[in-house]
Amino acid sequence: MLPGVGVFGTGSTARVLVPLLKAEGFEVHALWGRSEEEACCLAKELGIPFHTSQSDDVLLHQDVDLVCIYIPPSMTRQIAVKALGIGKNVVCEKAATAVDSFKMVTAARYYPQLLSVMGNTLRFLPAFVTMRQKLVEGYVGELQVCDVRVYGPSLLDQSYGWTCEELMGGGGLHTVGSAIIDLLSYLTGARAHRVHGLLRTFVQQNGLIRGIRRVTSDDFCFFQMLMGGTGSGSVCCTVTLNFNMPGSFVHEVMVVGSTGRLVARGTELYGQRNGSKGEELLLDDSGWVGPEVKEMPLPHLRGLSSMVKALRQSFQAHEERRSWARGPVAMAPTFEDGLYVQTVVEAVKRSSCSGEWECVEIMSQEPDPNHNLCEALQRNKN
Amino acid sequence: MLPGVGVFGTGSTARVLVPLLKAEGFEVHALWGRSEEEACCLAKELGIPFHTSQSDDVLLHQDVDLVCIYIPPSMTRQIAVKALGIGKNVVCEKAATAVDSFKMVTAARYYPQLLSVMGNTLRFLPAFVTMRQKLVEGYVGELQVCDVRVYGPSLLDQSYGWTCEELMGGGGLHTVGSAIIDLLSYLTGARAHRVHGLLRTFVQQNGLIRGIRRVTSDDFCFFQMLMGGTGSGSVCCTVTLNFNMPGSFVHEVMVVGSTGRLVARGTELYGQRNGSKGEELLLDDSGWVGPEVKEMPLPHLRGLSSMVKALRQSFQAHEERRSWARGPVAMAPTFEDGLYVQTVVEAVKRSSCSGEWECVEIMSQEPDPNHNLCEALQRNKN
Repeated sequence: MLPGVGVFGTGSTARVLVPLLKAEGFEVHALWGRSEEEACCLAKELGIPFHTSQSDDVLLHQDVDLVCIYIPPSMTRQIAVKALGIGKNVVCEKAATAVDSFKMVTAARYYPQLLSVMGNTLRFLPAFVTMRQKLVEGYVGELQVCDVRVYGPSLLDQSYGWTCEELMGGGGLHTVGSAIIDLLSYLTGARAHRVHGLLRTFVQQNGLIRGIRRVTSDDFCFFQMLMGGTGSGSVCCTVTLNFNMPGSFVHEVMVVGSTGRLVARGTELYGQRNGSKGEELLLDDSGWVGPEVKEMPLPHLRGLSSMVKALRQSFQAHEERRSWARGPVAMAPTFEDGLYVQTVVEAVKRSSCSGEWECVEIMSQEPDPNHNLCEALQRNKN
Repeated sequence: MLPGVGVFGTGSTARVLVPLLKAEGFEVHALWGRSEEEACCLAKELGIPFHTSQSDDVLLHQDVDLVCIYIPPSMTRQIAVKALGIGKNVVCEKAATAVDSFKMVTAARYYPQLLSVMGNTLRFLPAFVTMRQKLVEGYVGELQVCDVRVYGPSLLDQSYGWTCEELMGGGGLHTVGSAIIDLLSYLTGARAHRVHGLLRTFVQQNGLIRGIRRVTSDDFCFFQMLMGGTGSGSVCCTVTLNFNMPGSFVHEVMVVGSTGRLVARGTELYGQRNGSKGEELLLDDSGWVGPEVKEMPLPHLRGLSSMVKALRQSFQAHEERRSWARGPVAMAPTFEDGLYVQTVVEAVKRSSCSGEWECVEIMSQEPDPNHNLCEALQRNKN
């Protein structure tokens, strides 16, 4: 039986998610927005019976068994941890810092019977599901290189907000890079141990963000990750993110191995084995019918839709509406994956400051908050 | 009046060059090959009256006024410097080391009345000539990012030789990266001051190179250059070279600025200004009729052809067959440019070893040869 859903957030993802949930048979009972007005407006638009700006009203709502959290990264940890504490299943977006991610991991470990997945959606995209399968089957031979490019228009909101602020979780690396970092660990079955990166904010002010306000979040980022193995045995991943390209959207993930290569362009998958004359189309995803959303690139939209389907399958398997089966969502990123991704993001940022390769060291205990404060102050200086 | 030409080399470039020279009206009088046999064979094939394996026989040949040197990098310096000393005009490929390049610069400075250009051909490709012009005209606004990708099949020769040896000037960075480094400085009008890179040799042995022999030259290389200005004012260039992709050839150079972007795919140029709906084709080079050569990618072939045309114009302007006009070859890379390129190549290699950003410092005097020997020994250890 499908659980009742409560949604946090009134942004573009929440706006897309609700219809997808409904299409799969979920009932969305409650919506939270930062202001009463935003919540009211979107609830009316999407036909959600209850709305509020008090998080507890959703978390304690008796019909809500599954909480979907798509809000600014800096607020995610608080809601996610509280939701688990109250006994609700959680799907959420990334947090703002590794410390926050670590707290979420702690909570998820404490409530293993509750569903806790990162709403990172690229893993669910059929092109990447097939790509992973082909990699496992040995289509490319020994994996050597992954090369990812995402180009698009600015990620900044219309008005000044968290998307402009690096420390609030804004920027291409945090917003889009996170999804790529997660995807690459899913595809390769390995984790980055060393990273190198360079971040830039080319557009620091625009027509809407001016005066004393400046954008600090990156609009250009490239980073390299050495994954699995060490030395020459490791896989080299290069990722280029450029969000100074209005009017374009490029989303290309290529993996190259000793005997062939695979490349996902948008939602389609192509492959070529060494010795063959040309690329073969391995997955044509163009037949997909679903909403077209201007703010959300098709791979993310399509992935979100597949994730919602997986959630439906997971919950449908059980009679009790809070129970779920692990199978259909086994490929979803866990909160541990979220911590890993956040750790890589922070290592790339460190590398951009230091100019050096930085090690990816996953936090194993919560840092002393005072020490953390000092670090935050230091980072502010840069 | 056009000068008589002597060609050094029997590789794929020399094989393509001779017909191009002839088509423009140059007479090729002499061919040098490493062995008498190779020279004889190719001379017969291309209809060159004289061949030899003694370099002096070409350099001192009385009908030879222009020497074209397309031989392994480690031999280039010796021939080029000697040719200038004998009073011949020189077009040549890159040398193997910065020290060699420096010696070539010294010779070129000593004989300023002689033509001395690097036979790096991408600058002459019409797509890049137009791209540069558009950049100067402000098509992209303030330049932010250059992104270059070259993918193709292995660069290794059929048998073990210099292409397999990093120290002999083999590898993707040295062979193809050089041309890209030169091109980017031509396009941006700036030079790299800091670089970061990663080199890999994924294929260390193959069916033909085995036993105790190992390839040491890179078949994958990723590097970044900060060009012009310093700090946030600099242009970020990222270059990805991957020669583990048989059956494919990708040659893409993209420049992104504050108001638009330009991208050369193969020999065609596209552009898009911010606010416009799609790309516009700025230069369709598909009408070109010329030889198709399997070993040489079209942009290089097409560029080589344009360079030969420019050489013809340069020499045609004068009655005396050794005299030439600067105008038509003004855009050609000088030996000073060659030294710069070689310095960047070596800085990228250093960075790949150290893992750090390396400064690009152009040699201003010849290093102590003993010191140099020590360095070479140290490099061999890695």
